[in-house]
Amino acid sequence: MKKVKVLKPVLVSNQQRARENRNIFDRMKCLVINIIASPGAGKTSVIKNIVQCMQRRYRILVIEGDIKGQIDSQALAALGVDVVQINTATECHLDAFMTAQVLPQIEKKYDLILVENVGNLVCPAEFEIGEDYKLAILSTPEGDDKPLKYPLLFHLAKVVIINKSDLLPYLDFDMQAARKGIKGENPKALIFEVSAKTGRGFEEFCRHLEKEIDARKKKN
Amino acid sequence: MKKVKVLKPVLVSNQQRARENRNIFDRMKCLVINIIASPGAGKTSVIKNIVQCMQRRYRILVIEGDIKGQIDSQALAALGVDVVQINTATECHLDAFMTAQVLPQIEKKYDLILVENVGNLVCPAEFEIGEDYKLAILSTPEGDDKPLKYPLLFHLAKVVIINKSDLLPYLDFDMQAARKGIKGENPKALIFEVSAKTGRGFEEFCRHLEKEIDARKKKN
Repeated sequence: MKKVKVLKPVLVSNQQRARENRNIFDRMKCLVINIIASPGAGKTSVIKNIVQCMQRRYRILVIEGDIKGQIDSQALAALGVDVVQINTATECHLDAFMTAQVLPQIEKKYDLILVENVGNLVCPAEFEIGEDYKLAILSTPEGDDKPLKYPLLFHLAKVVIINKSDLLPYLDFDMQAARKGIKGENPKALIFEVSAKTGRGFEEFCRHLEKEIDARKKKN
Repeated sequence: MKKVKVLKPVLVSNQQRARENRNIFDRMKCLVINIIASPGAGKTSVIKNIVQCMQRRYRILVIEGDIKGQIDSQALAALGVDVVQINTATECHLDAFMTAQVLPQIEKKYDLILVENVGNLVCPAEFEIGEDYKLAILSTPEGDDKPLKYPLLFHLAKVVIINKSDLLPYLDFDMQAARKGIKGENPKALIFEVSAKTGRGFEEFCRHLEKEIDARKKKN
């Protein structure tokens, strides 16, 4: 009971801070994507592919959330992209306050900020950070039933990337069932099938991202 | 800050309730394993293999934790094993109180209780439920670096199952690095490599479980 009583104010004050972050991002005129997935679904590899597709034409920043360590930040920085690290210690998700703490470190202008959340399908979905939208990654070895089991994330995510399509021949993954499960939670979800290992599918996804960034620039 | 102030009493009172659960399990003279892994790492498939190996000689109960739905419970019940479902609604983990709520439903004697926690590598590790020990499952498609990124679970787990060994030929998974990462967190961890798809490795693991169950019976 105690827990429920406290969780609400925490979420309310998080939402308020998320709106303040949002105002800062709006002044930067950049698109901010909150990337959420299970551990090992391929968040970092998806980001690497996006960076490699787009870094010649767009200014990209990655905000990297991990409980501990900087393995992914180092791998991303090696591509020449700017990276800011958040270590959450015991927290299983990023929230608006942790995100706010790194905002003063952002000195340049960016077109696209990719936020890699902590690997977890549950809590990261509950905490807004000021993003334009949530992007969920579902990797094929996890199984096609995940949208039914972890409905909140798939309900909220505007875009879902189905990653590790290269493993499909070796798995009992039913793509139609996965798509049906995602659309059941969010009929408007945009779904992209990719392989971060082979690069397949990223051309289409990055074209989509470019349109979003360009539309945002015109709007501002 | 508010959150931290409240989390401690919650954890303390959880620990107390876990001890009470433990007393009840002790009176039942059964081995209780808290199974923790990412979404899609193969918790249910591992449990299926254990049930199929052992249900002729041992009385087994599965306590099934999911945010929503009963997909896994139904699949397990179809094997003829007793299953009790806990739906956590928004909670990303089982705790001792949720577990306590299902104890009155346990009317028979069991040798082994397998608890399938919610798919999450972070919070389930923080909440004891009265188990003998935690068993972590790491699936090969998640990558060999997960023990470094989610250290608490691998620090606490007495047994680690590395699942989906059938996919190794198609992945960049370094088994030695994974073992080193696990042993770095817990030098005493017992590690078993299995494939829940092909059944490989379960004979050895179930022999180990049988020894543990028999030792517990002799002790009581």
